[in-house]
Amino acid sequence: MIGIDVGGANTKLVDGRETTIHYCPLWEGASLTGLLQKYHDRRAAVVMSGELADCFSGKMEGIEFIVHAVKEAIPDALFYGTDACFHQTAVPQLAAANWLAAADYLRLEYPDAILVDMGSTTTDIIPLSRFDALKGLSDLQRLQQGYLVYTGLLRTNLAAALPQVVIGGIETATSSEYFATSADAHLVLGHISPDEYTCEAPDRGEKTREAALRRLARVVCAEPGEIGSSGTLEIAYQFWRAQERQIICGIGRVMDECDADTIITAGIGSSLLAKEMDAINLRDRIGEASDALPAFAVKEVALRDESA
Amino acid sequence: MIGIDVGGANTKLVDGRETTIHYCPLWEGASLTGLLQKYHDRRAAVVMSGELADCFSGKMEGIEFIVHAVKEAIPDALFYGTDACFHQTAVPQLAAANWLAAADYLRLEYPDAILVDMGSTTTDIIPLSRFDALKGLSDLQRLQQGYLVYTGLLRTNLAAALPQVVIGGIETATSSEYFATSADAHLVLGHISPDEYTCEAPDRGEKTREAALRRLARVVCAEPGEIGSSGTLEIAYQFWRAQERQIICGIGRVMDECDADTIITAGIGSSLLAKEMDAINLRDRIGEASDALPAFAVKEVALRDESA
Repeated sequence: MIGIDVGGANTKLVDGRETTIHYCPLWEGASLTGLLQKYHDRRAAVVMSGELADCFSGKMEGIEFIVHAVKEAIPDALFYGTDACFHQTAVPQLAAANWLAAADYLRLEYPDAILVDMGSTTTDIIPLSRFDALKGLSDLQRLQQGYLVYTGLLRTNLAAALPQVVIGGIETATSSEYFATSADAHLVLGHISPDEYTCEAPDRGEKTREAALRRLARVVCAEPGEIGSSGTLEIAYQFWRAQERQIICGIGRVMDECDADTIITAGIGSSLLAKEMDAINLRDRIGEASDALPAFAVKEVALRDESA
Repeated sequence: MIGIDVGGANTKLVDGRETTIHYCPLWEGASLTGLLQKYHDRRAAVVMSGELADCFSGKMEGIEFIVHAVKEAIPDALFYGTDACFHQTAVPQLAAANWLAAADYLRLEYPDAILVDMGSTTTDIIPLSRFDALKGLSDLQRLQQGYLVYTGLLRTNLAAALPQVVIGGIETATSSEYFATSADAHLVLGHISPDEYTCEAPDRGEKTREAALRRLARVVCAEPGEIGSSGTLEIAYQFWRAQERQIICGIGRVMDECDADTIITAGIGSSLLAKEMDAINLRDRIGEASDALPAFAVKEVALRDESA
């Protein structure tokens, strides 16, 4: 059994604990069937969130597209929904259920924990003690309840978290253009390597430190020469502080309402977050499968259901 | 004499008072020379801000590209710089001098006014009484002094101005993805017509009210059916209020420091802004040339210099 998580930008595959993350932007017409073809003789459990990609006029069109594309490669694939059940056809419940699969997998072992899964694009904050109340929640409802924080390690427009920045002591408004992304900030801060910069750069340029510094300077309409490398690093650092504050405030809000005793971090931002708080880093327990937790989890839940 | 303003996204042309705005995204390789070819036998005065487009590794590369592309079509073109002088070759002073040309044109007639030029992407707030102090300012310095507010009528990511929105009384965090743009908000609010939606839509889709409502709902990860048309309109309305607040605070800050007695609005957002405050709408004085003020202004300044 393999686990698959089809996002709008990335498709994640877990086979055993071997994890691969493919940049597969659905809105650019990347071929999901082609990517999955080599697994045609395997069984697969699937979750998705890619139905929200704006190449689809609505979520149901996205669900139908993804189910069809997966089944072209793997006809017997099973799809997990927000009702915590598996389905074989395109039904509305399949919209954005990847986070629920992660909760479903972890809730037995960690019934009183909060899961914080920081991915490339978003961060899920999930109170595992409330599994029954989580069922059926849409992304809209999760945004309202603080369970979905739309900020991630790689694909977040710097301007969205940083309306202004202090450079050399001077408060400076930022450009709202998509000039730099969170991957640029985390690259120059040493949180990720160029290899881990798996999304496209905003200018479609190189993923080197030098190119990232150029993109970061552009956020204040400047070149690195105009603000110095200290100014450029200030932009990266203040972005990360703003992003961290957003996540930590979110965790605090969810903890207040559910008396959790433990925080578990997962996702590609897991180690970075675990360092900042007293948390269980899921990467220490399940290895790189933690980077693609919903894909790993949906496979484990399918196996658990089978053996029950 | 024609006036040309080469932006990153739009190139604006003024011939007499006849104004055309061409969507000509330099980062997508649109041909500036091709666009200008039919003016090959005319004299031209040029300003730019497109050198910041992220297809160029630095501003000087952008300036050289734009000067070369313009001169391929119009060999004798003159380029206005932040030193308030005309140049015939690519020099650093040509970076982002379009706003200064507008100030240079208006300062004699309105020496104590503040010019508020709201374009597709940015809004310039310029104290005309300080013309000498304005010379040489970079976009970085203008962001720091509040003279450049990076929000516009068409091309501003909704998420940049709207980290959260109240929908049906419930505070809702927004997605930081580029799902909807200010043109979507202004279209559904009736501030612009589909014809005036001259930039590309975020999903490259249609510029109808229905498609814009779909893009706006996506800002909270929803479909229009999930939040109703009132919810979708709330997103548009709250964005516009946030955008307006940003501009009005900026004007207040600049007025405080320079004792201006008059506000002049210009740019494609001129009429919308003039309605909200006691201002001279430049569109009532110079017609549609107000929509492309720097292009009109650089031509007028060149003619004034000639006759001096």
